[in-house]
Amino acid sequence: MSNDRLIYLPLGGAGEIGMNCYVYGYGAPGKERLIIVDLGVTFPDMDTTPGVDLIMPDITWLEKRRDQIDGVFITHGHEDHIGAVGHLYDKLRAPIFARKFTASLARRKLDEHGAPESALNVVEAYPAFTQAGPFKVAYVPISHSIPESAGLAIDTPQGRILHTGDFKIDESPVVGEPFDRKLWDEVSKDGVKALVCDSTNVFSQHAGRSESTLREPISKFMKEATGMVVATTFASNVARLKTLATAASDAGRTVCLLGRSMQRMTQTAKETGLLEGFPQTVGPEEAADIPRQNLFCLVTGSQGERRAASAQLANNKSYLGIGLKEGDTFLFSSKTIPGNERGVIRIMNQLSEKGVDIVDHNDGDYHVSGHANQPDLLEMHKITKPQMVIPMHGEHRHLREHAKLADKNGLAGIVAVNGMMLDLSGNQPKVAEYIDTGRTYLDGSVKYGAMDGIIRDRIRMALNGHVTVTLIIDENDDPLGDPWVELMGLPETGRSNAALAEVLEGDLGQFMGRAKPKTLRNEEALEKELRKIVRQVSQNEIGKKPEVTVVVSRLN
Amino acid sequence: MSNDRLIYLPLGGAGEIGMNCYVYGYGAPGKERLIIVDLGVTFPDMDTTPGVDLIMPDITWLEKRRDQIDGVFITHGHEDHIGAVGHLYDKLRAPIFARKFTASLARRKLDEHGAPESALNVVEAYPAFTQAGPFKVAYVPISHSIPESAGLAIDTPQGRILHTGDFKIDESPVVGEPFDRKLWDEVSKDGVKALVCDSTNVFSQHAGRSESTLREPISKFMKEATGMVVATTFASNVARLKTLATAASDAGRTVCLLGRSMQRMTQTAKETGLLEGFPQTVGPEEAADIPRQNLFCLVTGSQGERRAASAQLANNKSYLGIGLKEGDTFLFSSKTIPGNERGVIRIMNQLSEKGVDIVDHNDGDYHVSGHANQPDLLEMHKITKPQMVIPMHGEHRHLREHAKLADKNGLAGIVAVNGMMLDLSGNQPKVAEYIDTGRTYLDGSVKYGAMDGIIRDRIRMALNGHVTVTLIIDENDDPLGDPWVELMGLPETGRSNAALAEVLEGDLGQFMGRAKPKTLRNEEALEKELRKIVRQVSQNEIGKKPEVTVVVSRLN
Repeated sequence: MSNDRLIYLPLGGAGEIGMNCYVYGYGAPGKERLIIVDLGVTFPDMDTTPGVDLIMPDITWLEKRRDQIDGVFITHGHEDHIGAVGHLYDKLRAPIFARKFTASLARRKLDEHGAPESALNVVEAYPAFTQAGPFKVAYVPISHSIPESAGLAIDTPQGRILHTGDFKIDESPVVGEPFDRKLWDEVSKDGVKALVCDSTNVFSQHAGRSESTLREPISKFMKEATGMVVATTFASNVARLKTLATAASDAGRTVCLLGRSMQRMTQTAKETGLLEGFPQTVGPEEAADIPRQNLFCLVTGSQGERRAASAQLANNKSYLGIGLKEGDTFLFSSKTIPGNERGVIRIMNQLSEKGVDIVDHNDGDYHVSGHANQPDLLEMHKITKPQMVIPMHGEHRHLREHAKLADKNGLAGIVAVNGMMLDLSGNQPKVAEYIDTGRTYLDGSVKYGAMDGIIRDRIRMALNGHVTVTLIIDENDDPLGDPWVELMGLPETGRSNAALAEVLEGDLGQFMGRAKPKTLRNEEALEKELRKIVRQVSQNEIGKKPEVTVVVSRLN
Repeated sequence: MSNDRLIYLPLGGAGEIGMNCYVYGYGAPGKERLIIVDLGVTFPDMDTTPGVDLIMPDITWLEKRRDQIDGVFITHGHEDHIGAVGHLYDKLRAPIFARKFTASLARRKLDEHGAPESALNVVEAYPAFTQAGPFKVAYVPISHSIPESAGLAIDTPQGRILHTGDFKIDESPVVGEPFDRKLWDEVSKDGVKALVCDSTNVFSQHAGRSESTLREPISKFMKEATGMVVATTFASNVARLKTLATAASDAGRTVCLLGRSMQRMTQTAKETGLLEGFPQTVGPEEAADIPRQNLFCLVTGSQGERRAASAQLANNKSYLGIGLKEGDTFLFSSKTIPGNERGVIRIMNQLSEKGVDIVDHNDGDYHVSGHANQPDLLEMHKITKPQMVIPMHGEHRHLREHAKLADKNGLAGIVAVNGMMLDLSGNQPKVAEYIDTGRTYLDGSVKYGAMDGIIRDRIRMALNGHVTVTLIIDENDDPLGDPWVELMGLPETGRSNAALAEVLEGDLGQFMGRAKPKTLRNEEALEKELRKIVRQVSQNEIGKKPEVTVVVSRLN
């Protein structure tokens, strides 16, 4: 028994913002009973993951230990915490726990993947606890930018761990539970072994602002705007939707929701009793008949997503019958996530071309963050007084800064990135093992590993273009006719002012004419030589070395 | 003669930030004598231009009017103003004008493209004028983030145009000429027909700050830093290099420059007499022997460029013998240009993994912009009192905001984007024509148009992967053997748990077996069918439709 250890293992979210997946375990080394906190996704980009649809944590390690898993606990309904719960259900088949609103969102994802009704368990908040193997887990409500977020109090045989989930300290969050200092005092009062804590905004030095501070500026904005008003924000930020819609309604505007997730989130929030007093809405057909100065559209796509409503409205003359024009105003009640700037700026310029005025969060009047800034993180450290601080939900630089902050205040901070298993049994966290981990790509209907080379090949084709070489070798191992070349993603003409394909065919043909029978019989050597010639000649003709597919057909 | 008109035609830089190229003309419609202001480049990205090396304005319109061009006037040495001067020289063969420092930079680019010595003319600043056809052009010094920037006073038969180039109002710019209000008063005193004006920072509401305000915080930073200090900024910001190097030297650190453009810029600035009192520097070999607390490296790559010194230092154990470690400090004396965030953040996290402390411009202590903020733009309007304001150097949203600003202050503002030719002859600017314009890509050693479809194919291969299908048809128009399939950038196995290539070969083979002789004889129809099958079967197997190259070899 004395051999038992308490472990923490991030498989996603530690060393990146996105794809959260944290494992806790207790038991004899290698035989620990395990629980998983969150199963999120992250989103692909053209630079590193062209053509990929979604990115999930690589859970091979968990799959091999499926029998040791006692539960999956989802802290809240953001995609980076809940997004993989359907995609990965089949590999884990462990019971899933969530509060009511989050569970409604999870239900849909599980249904899409044919998971049984019984897979999902709706839990009540603290003081209710769920037993999961050696753990007892309670959902401790905490404020964030989506309703019903919760931190977890995880009771282990070696003491209590507080896993904050995503949070901010907001005492008047408009929708959902305010941050309850007394509650967090209470869950901390008997001592906290470890605080596993959100690090997103560790570099923001000023105190965080409440969601409710936006009410006044947004009301003022709605009153002053002429023409049609469109606003975009994350659909999951139900509090923001309420502030925006209410202000618009108070200013005499009818509210129209555009974008599937806008519809879904408000509906789910209403069904679970979290959203009351939301103004009546109309569909786009009805909206199109309303005088523009009396219309307010609340739309998806604040991050510049190409197929979302914001992009559609900006890019097209009209979308679902609604068209923007000079004198209308478009409000970004959002912050652009680093990496999404190009998409957002494209929309802004398209709107500008239509003569639409753009208002963005600039001075913070129209957006506040959902994450705790540095002073609020310190406040959380102070409330919980943990033995150790384990920063999570951050890139390496965030985790490091957060750990330094803890250290400075006399708490043992440690940077644990994805795959780094910590043993929390002693007074100090220590590294127990390094686990092979990584990313799983969902690409169309197939899942594969980030290191499988598929995406590497795509990136190479995008950078270098592609050449297909085909040739036929007859029954006597002699070339039959000339090699044939097809180009894709390459200029047709190069330095010698002749068609690149013809120059390549000429040089390949010459090589074949000279090639020794031994070479012609050796498949691998022949392909290698032909590939080399294509790359050399291309370098000479067009200054770049393409990717090459060689197909040798043999008639024998 | 009364038929003559004064025209303005942006071919790059109006509707984007980058690739500046503005044309002025005077004469009978279609027969105007022309001058060009700036010939810049912009940089590719993976989202829209994978594999492209550089992007330049499409100057087809100018090429066709080569005989009408009386000169190319380069305002300053930033790549978005000077970068295409070598690449496009051969197409224009017009005399190029620049001040001394800028000319040194242009010289190298022209040499690389074999332009004759005589192509380049070094000019003095105002009151010197250069006659170019019906125009007289003077270089009016103006402060910016590179030495020797100049606005142009362009005297035309219809009055004076002031083309600001890039500028800020900085009365103590550390290196180079301060903004000289009296000089700008003087060039404006007889009336200004049009102010063609930088718009980059039109959304920044606060007054701009002088380069010299950085001296104190940078000195303080250098004194307090322990370990090795590395700083990155644009190499062309010679003033910043001087501030950084001097502060480091004063703090007892030896200065080492890393990165080719760092070397080149300081050298050119010294040679042209613009950089005095720059501390002695050492090469990397020598630097490696200096105790780290006495070393300061000034390095390229502030925008996260993969091959620049910053990325090399962050990504590798050591670069040219210099390695960073815990306790060292890395200063970004720069602002990340929108779109470059991912690359910069990658470097920051790599540095964090090494334990290096990162300091960035955050509160503006370590970086100021080189462009005029809104109050400074208004100041410029006030100094020059133009008849009309034509915003340039901005995305559509910047141009529009700038034009609105002018209108609000009683000046005729107009948004003219690339390809929109304005007739400035009257009291109000009016649109004369729309010119087909666009972008030219330099890709390896070949130049081609943005709309040629080459890049579209690359992006498709990156998103969808690529399938090669080859098959042989014999002398009797019968298939010989089975079709052969090769994949690139695609998963090997799909829904049916068999190799995707084999599933495709099976289905293609079945089609060939059933195909009518008529289809087998019709090249185009056959390829189309085979392509369709590949896409359908792939959609079914892996949930996506790849790009397909079909090669049918016929033995007859």
